[in-house]
Amino acid sequence: MIQPQLKLKLVMGEQHTLLGPGKIALLNAIVAEHSLSKAAKSIGMSYRRAWLLIQELNDSLREPVLVTQTGGQAGGGSVLTPMAFELIALYDTLTQEAEAATEHTRNRLASMIKTD
Amino acid sequence: MIQPQLKLKLVMGEQHTLLGPGKIALLNAIVAEHSLSKAAKSIGMSYRRAWLLIQELNDSLREPVLVTQTGGQAGGGSVLTPMAFELIALYDTLTQEAEAATEHTRNRLASMIKTD
Repeated sequence: MIQPQLKLKLVMGEQHTLLGPGKIALLNAIVAEHSLSKAAKSIGMSYRRAWLLIQELNDSLREPVLVTQTGGQAGGGSVLTPMAFELIALYDTLTQEAEAATEHTRNRLASMIKTD
Repeated sequence: MIQPQLKLKLVMGEQHTLLGPGKIALLNAIVAEHSLSKAAKSIGMSYRRAWLLIQELNDSLREPVLVTQTGGQAGGGSVLTPMAFELIALYDTLTQEAEAATEHTRNRLASMIKTD
């Protein structure tokens, strides 16, 4: 019996998605790639969409998640802010809390799934 | 401070979405409209997509969620099965469990949102 896994989306009102698997995958890819364009490419997302998701986060939150540095020793590039790391950690916590709380009900759902 | 609400998706592996807000909205619309085409229209979903979502559910689950009746007193039409109602109830339970377990963390997220 394979247990279905949870993917969480956080919405404000019915229309506006504040946070979901796409934005979190993008932030994690930026951690790995240190560049918005490389991060987008690494997860098969268009640069345009990646840029829009970052703009949405920057517009929604008290502090931006990504800032662009020019020059300096590293030659500039996109740098995640503490807000971004807080957001990634918070989404992990939300997922763990929700998965733990729904363990039994997800097992019930698993028992409804065709196995052949 | 507005608290972000949770939308849950249940996935099998990384690719296959078993259940999410779209399928649940469609099932609830069929409860209200007693017809797949009217239900799709009522939630702004194409008939083709509605039909595909129902097929996905019927293919995934031990019993179908929707059966087509022909003739009879009611003149036929699409009828939800007990499996469909079980699925709607189970998704409500999952949502309630996940929302209760993440209350505090969602409040932390709310405090990160711009208020102006």
